[in-house]
Amino acid sequence: MNDFIFHNPDKVYFGKDQLRRLPEELAAFGTKVLMVYGGGSIKRSGLYDEMRGLLEGAGMQMFELAGVEPNPRHTTANRGAALCKENGIDVVLAVGGGSAIDCAKGVAAAAKTEDGDVWPLVAGGVWVTDALPVVAVLTNAATGSEMDAWGVITNWETNEKIGLGGSALIPRAAFENPELSYTLPPYQTACGAFDIFNHVLDNYYLAGEATFDVVMEMQEAVMRAVVKWAPVALAEPENYEARANLMWASSLALNTILDAGTVHACACHAMEHELSAYYDITHGHGLAILTPRWLEYILNEQTAPAIYRLGTAVFGVEEGLAPEEGARKAIECVSGFAFNTLGLESTLSHFGIDDAHFEDMAKHACADGEIPGLRSLSVDDVVNIFKMCR
Amino acid sequence: MNDFIFHNPDKVYFGKDQLRRLPEELAAFGTKVLMVYGGGSIKRSGLYDEMRGLLEGAGMQMFELAGVEPNPRHTTANRGAALCKENGIDVVLAVGGGSAIDCAKGVAAAAKTEDGDVWPLVAGGVWVTDALPVVAVLTNAATGSEMDAWGVITNWETNEKIGLGGSALIPRAAFENPELSYTLPPYQTACGAFDIFNHVLDNYYLAGEATFDVVMEMQEAVMRAVVKWAPVALAEPENYEARANLMWASSLALNTILDAGTVHACACHAMEHELSAYYDITHGHGLAILTPRWLEYILNEQTAPAIYRLGTAVFGVEEGLAPEEGARKAIECVSGFAFNTLGLESTLSHFGIDDAHFEDMAKHACADGEIPGLRSLSVDDVVNIFKMCR
Repeated sequence: MNDFIFHNPDKVYFGKDQLRRLPEELAAFGTKVLMVYGGGSIKRSGLYDEMRGLLEGAGMQMFELAGVEPNPRHTTANRGAALCKENGIDVVLAVGGGSAIDCAKGVAAAAKTEDGDVWPLVAGGVWVTDALPVVAVLTNAATGSEMDAWGVITNWETNEKIGLGGSALIPRAAFENPELSYTLPPYQTACGAFDIFNHVLDNYYLAGEATFDVVMEMQEAVMRAVVKWAPVALAEPENYEARANLMWASSLALNTILDAGTVHACACHAMEHELSAYYDITHGHGLAILTPRWLEYILNEQTAPAIYRLGTAVFGVEEGLAPEEGARKAIECVSGFAFNTLGLESTLSHFGIDDAHFEDMAKHACADGEIPGLRSLSVDDVVNIFKMCR
Repeated sequence: MNDFIFHNPDKVYFGKDQLRRLPEELAAFGTKVLMVYGGGSIKRSGLYDEMRGLLEGAGMQMFELAGVEPNPRHTTANRGAALCKENGIDVVLAVGGGSAIDCAKGVAAAAKTEDGDVWPLVAGGVWVTDALPVVAVLTNAATGSEMDAWGVITNWETNEKIGLGGSALIPRAAFENPELSYTLPPYQTACGAFDIFNHVLDNYYLAGEATFDVVMEMQEAVMRAVVKWAPVALAEPENYEARANLMWASSLALNTILDAGTVHACACHAMEHELSAYYDITHGHGLAILTPRWLEYILNEQTAPAIYRLGTAVFGVEEGLAPEEGARKAIECVSGFAFNTLGLESTLSHFGIDDAHFEDMAKHACADGEIPGLRSLSVDDVVNIFKMCR
């Protein structure tokens, strides 16, 4: 295993009755709050009014950046940064799922730069150590942004979707009420669940030789919980236990407790960001299409035991098979989870995506060299995997 | 499940090559460091000289509180607090296992009081929010003090061993190098392993109806890792993987990631603190003697499924038995782990402990009322369990 540093100072308030503590958390930073959110869902659900009431009741001044896109644009983050500069904002409050939180991180970082432009930070791979404080109110179990150091920002002009990271981007506090995800459309629930599952899988045993038994055991525990509770959440959208398990799994998947000592790999995420950047598809769905094909593509004598272990530990595949046979059964289980249990369409052609840009997308994905993992991936490998998804 | 807050800002540096970063962590707080440690083991191992070299090389002034006892006394903590006050100490650096870190927490808290006495804080159950910063260099996987908000302080005059807690007592940084535990005597390795195991078990399913599936899964994962790697560490004291799994399990067990959403129970710990307070025995050994008897005592129709699940999930007990039969097999496995695998003596009479103080000890343990858990424990229950351990 590798040496690691674990440091996650995010303060998570989890449960039904926590939001009332939001004003005191915000007050630690000041009184001028920029609320960042997406479409109208928080207005329909009443959450917007509740937030406004809480903040105004505490004597805070609320500003707004509304209309954040599902794959948030750098131009939107820049609009938010301008609002921060004009109004002397003290704290950026994201309300929503991963898109709102990611955008808030972009806003918080850009607000501290001279020209208020987030893109040079993103494109330059700058590790952000100075940003406005971010606080998150989570409504969707998926990206883990509520408890991690990363946001993903899309530049639509250049078809680039890139992670912006930094210690200053870990939210100072996150409010996670599973009830807020009751009203999610089933499609978002399904995509979110697969996103969580893949966050863990991308860093699993599959990441290479740096294994750490107690961490692998916990990775499997969290993947099992996602596989168990996602269908319950789909069948019973207001099942608290299902929503709570998914929401906490979302945070656990990327708060670095599950990648301690591992190699930080992200094969499927690296490939999927290209799909979203070119075609604006929902991230979790892109991952669901890619993951079983990726496993199939990397399956060989060397990788079979790892993939087979995934099958036995997470999906209950029987013990004692030949490794390749066991691995094939594991991959069938991953496909079954994505396309049957979660009900996600299984091909890129469903989105009208053909191979027109596969070569460019693969080059983007491998811009820093081969993508690391149990089997590292070259440009040709990525093109081949995209082709398997058509 | 219950609402919860997860907040653990401790910065853990884990691995072989991390100690060189200690000076920069300490420098964030100042230049005057009080090093708190136990007996001569860190002098024999060379760690003392290494620490001195690191601190002096960074221009820091080092003061010392040596000779911390295995169950650290309030009088020792008070001696440290006096050193802090006399010398204007900026940061308390614990080097050792749980005793050194617990004592350092007592020092850090008492140093901020007017009279420099830790006992009123301990006895009064004060939640400490103001203390000198504590940094830990861990040499023993056991108590979890390196990443939690608690220290246990013993008053030998009154036979009281009580936890001192507070947000200010979470170490600001912890350095965990598994190699530093290579030289631990086997007895300490065994006691430490059981301590970790019981920290998780005390908060497991057994804690009552407030279960949270993803957390239970992770609890089982960590207990499995302890059961798997403790015998390896005993057989091969310099097996890095074994030492690393135990050390990180120690931190995970009490950094609150494993009790999110549960009822905070501590049946065995509450009982064991009385054994240590009256007879100064090694904490992990006391737990090992108590735990199987406690499980046996609380076993009934209602608790059997929970105990049986422990057996199947952690010890591989076969599925499909009647709950009580499965639970009995699980308890046999816990006994086997404690008394065979870890080789710990199984009775209190081994320490010359008879029932002279059982009644008083039980009253102490239940001073705040019945001890909560899947079956809550009254004074009589505690006496009965002590008697089963004779």
